[in-house]
Amino acid sequence: MQEREATSTLPKRSENFSEWYTQVALRAELADYTPVRGSMAIRPYGYAIWEGIQAWLDRHFKETGHVTAYFPLLIPESFLQKEAEHVEGFAPQVAWVTHGGDEELAERLAVRPTSEAIILPMYAKWIQSYRDLPVLLLQWNSVVRWEKSTRLFLRTAEFLWHEGHTAHRTMEDADAECRLILGIYRELVEDVLAIPVLAGIKPPSERFAGADNTYTLEALMPDGQAIQTGTSHFLGQNFAKAFNVKFLDSDNQEKFIWSTSWAVSTRLIGSLIMAHGDDKGLILPPRIAPFQVVIVPILGRDDAVVIPAAKALAAQLGKRYRVKLDDRDAYTAGWKFNEWELRGAPLRVEIGPRDVANAQVVVSRRTGGKKASLSMEGIEDALGRILEEIQTDLFARGKSYLEAHTTAAETLDELARAMEDVKGFVRVPWCGMQSCEDTIRGRTGASPRVIPLDDAPSGNCPVCGMPSKYSVYYARAY
Amino acid sequence: MQEREATSTLPKRSENFSEWYTQVALRAELADYTPVRGSMAIRPYGYAIWEGIQAWLDRHFKETGHVTAYFPLLIPESFLQKEAEHVEGFAPQVAWVTHGGDEELAERLAVRPTSEAIILPMYAKWIQSYRDLPVLLLQWNSVVRWEKSTRLFLRTAEFLWHEGHTAHRTMEDADAECRLILGIYRELVEDVLAIPVLAGIKPPSERFAGADNTYTLEALMPDGQAIQTGTSHFLGQNFAKAFNVKFLDSDNQEKFIWSTSWAVSTRLIGSLIMAHGDDKGLILPPRIAPFQVVIVPILGRDDAVVIPAAKALAAQLGKRYRVKLDDRDAYTAGWKFNEWELRGAPLRVEIGPRDVANAQVVVSRRTGGKKASLSMEGIEDALGRILEEIQTDLFARGKSYLEAHTTAAETLDELARAMEDVKGFVRVPWCGMQSCEDTIRGRTGASPRVIPLDDAPSGNCPVCGMPSKYSVYYARAY
Repeated sequence: MQEREATSTLPKRSENFSEWYTQVALRAELADYTPVRGSMAIRPYGYAIWEGIQAWLDRHFKETGHVTAYFPLLIPESFLQKEAEHVEGFAPQVAWVTHGGDEELAERLAVRPTSEAIILPMYAKWIQSYRDLPVLLLQWNSVVRWEKSTRLFLRTAEFLWHEGHTAHRTMEDADAECRLILGIYRELVEDVLAIPVLAGIKPPSERFAGADNTYTLEALMPDGQAIQTGTSHFLGQNFAKAFNVKFLDSDNQEKFIWSTSWAVSTRLIGSLIMAHGDDKGLILPPRIAPFQVVIVPILGRDDAVVIPAAKALAAQLGKRYRVKLDDRDAYTAGWKFNEWELRGAPLRVEIGPRDVANAQVVVSRRTGGKKASLSMEGIEDALGRILEEIQTDLFARGKSYLEAHTTAAETLDELARAMEDVKGFVRVPWCGMQSCEDTIRGRTGASPRVIPLDDAPSGNCPVCGMPSKYSVYYARAY
Repeated sequence: MQEREATSTLPKRSENFSEWYTQVALRAELADYTPVRGSMAIRPYGYAIWEGIQAWLDRHFKETGHVTAYFPLLIPESFLQKEAEHVEGFAPQVAWVTHGGDEELAERLAVRPTSEAIILPMYAKWIQSYRDLPVLLLQWNSVVRWEKSTRLFLRTAEFLWHEGHTAHRTMEDADAECRLILGIYRELVEDVLAIPVLAGIKPPSERFAGADNTYTLEALMPDGQAIQTGTSHFLGQNFAKAFNVKFLDSDNQEKFIWSTSWAVSTRLIGSLIMAHGDDKGLILPPRIAPFQVVIVPILGRDDAVVIPAAKALAAQLGKRYRVKLDDRDAYTAGWKFNEWELRGAPLRVEIGPRDVANAQVVVSRRTGGKKASLSMEGIEDALGRILEEIQTDLFARGKSYLEAHTTAAETLDELARAMEDVKGFVRVPWCGMQSCEDTIRGRTGASPRVIPLDDAPSGNCPVCGMPSKYSVYYARAY
């Protein structure tokens, strides 16, 4: 038998969440460190999760009229500087190309931290008339943001994402696009990744650099810290003016376009790891798991019967589900059970000599409960029902946790106490002044995560006592 | 009606092939120039071709046991230097990152020109035993190679590709992998893109930097120049030794792995544009065309009947084909005909009031021939047959061209004359010496493109007169 670190040495999730997270990401072979500072390798099992996210989003983007394109990786410094807030926000994190071969470049090139500054100039070239609008376009790529301290998936110097960049005739169209995209992201995060979120907008201090408004989804991780799981930015006419993107409207007037940008990244995989795991390792929701069903044949007693039966079952189930047949003969069945629990496969199916004789299999859910025998008759539908139950169950667990860790505060003291006791989201009335927000940040170490979409403010700002204009959910955050 | 440049101003393909190429790429909205030197934007119509290539390849890679991963964009200079030939080949073309934010880096980072130097070190970490082999892995990304002179798709400072990197237990396994991949590429290029190729290996002077052998596909463009349409490299143990990638074999001996790498890039789209066009513009083979069928309703006389009929037809055909309904009311039908001919849609379907009344449509093939009326009854199957005919026809035309422009020469004079007269591939016996190859290059301006897979050398080297060891196809090349 091959030696590997047993899962028994995995740190307990409840005791050392941070180290548990890192060890799970490494040992489940989702990602690994590389010799490049702050950059990780995404291993095939982790990348398969990203492929699942890509395929789901790509289908929804196309159904809503979006098309895909590709823009250069390297952006001249002078373009990045055209939108003042934008360059201020991103310049400190830019990796700069200064040489091509032996030649020193006349102008430095930024490795893209985001692509507004190269896409908007192209829109200026492509958009002439209102008939050319809207432009609904995205690209899949990687971006580089020079980070001092990094963590696998959650904060890396390079990450994968898509970035949508759309151009519209009116403010209303652009805002509707932002909301459409937020809805797609919400469906992805809640229905596919089984992570419940709060949806809303960011306060000005947390907006994307150069945006007039940022829509956001915020999830709560088991350590009580919030994490952003998708953003959609209403850019107003800021970038249109910086890059001179105008169109001739039907009233024969030249006007600036209204633009949006939006993204989710491989950071989502970090949220996914944190959201559903346990002391045995990862738990993957069936709709995103690279392998929904892992079949482990019980070898050693009657392999001539068991192996063909396991292969036939894999072929049968493979038509409907993502199936892995683990028939490696160098590992015991018990070792494989641990391995696939660590790697979060939602359903395990064992098949041994007696099971073959009885036309049944033994099924274990990664979310717990006893093993159960299941007749081969109607097995496809039965497994489908169980997978749906696991998916629903994971979301329901997350929802209970989120509700149990969301509270409200009227005063600074209450807020600070709630932040310690409840560890989660605390809803606070806010007057809208930056100075009051700063006071709350300083006192609590929390930041304002989201103003809910259906905001109905009530009460007074706990800092200045003025009537609130917004309700803000505060939390400590990743 | 909106003004655009009429296609009548497109340069004639037969008169100015190079300018025709560039204008088609731009006006068909496949790509555009950007403010970044040598880097293009791939527009949605061009990117849709790439998505088609990706989807086809991804399916075939997965069916043959390959998995996808992601490795860092930025590679420390010291890693690039570990394989001597490799760094010599790529260093002059590297874009170098020297600063992260305000900080100057202790070591320069290469924007990946190819990823052997970052993937092999990870293999050294991941591979311990023969049980870990083979590793069959690829990534989809972009690479940067600093080019002095660039052309849309054909030669750009940045291009998109996949790069496969596999690790094997034996030399034979690695060689078989190279051949498997070459076969997949050949099927893509010939059966999907309808471009016939010569398959074989490169002479040493044309190999990938660091490879022991490079398998290649070579196509012939209508100007008589060859272009490489896919390569698969047998890397031997060169990179394994440079990066110390070893495994413990079943005989308890530590051994170096055998590795391969392989790629096709967006350059293929350049070949596709060149291969099939005519004076009206692009011609896209049905299996790769973003829109296989373009429906143009004949508006103005009975729109209340025609528009719903066109929409119903688009919905019906959309279940089986990639369909575009062009119902824009700002353009005449004639303008749209020109537009979709320029953009290479293989089939156009017109539907007007009389067609609706007669339960028929009018069909035009992009490859020529008269318009024909087609009954709505059985239209789906009928269009399918026509699309297949167009696909077959395009490949057959290419094949005739390739055969008519492939010849053989026994002497240097014959070779030089054939290069001028036939403009294509000339087969030459070769002794295997570099000096003889250099003589031929100097005399003819052609380069050795490929030694056929099923090589049966005969005759004597035209330079030194020694008996030939190989047959080499020479051509001028992109």
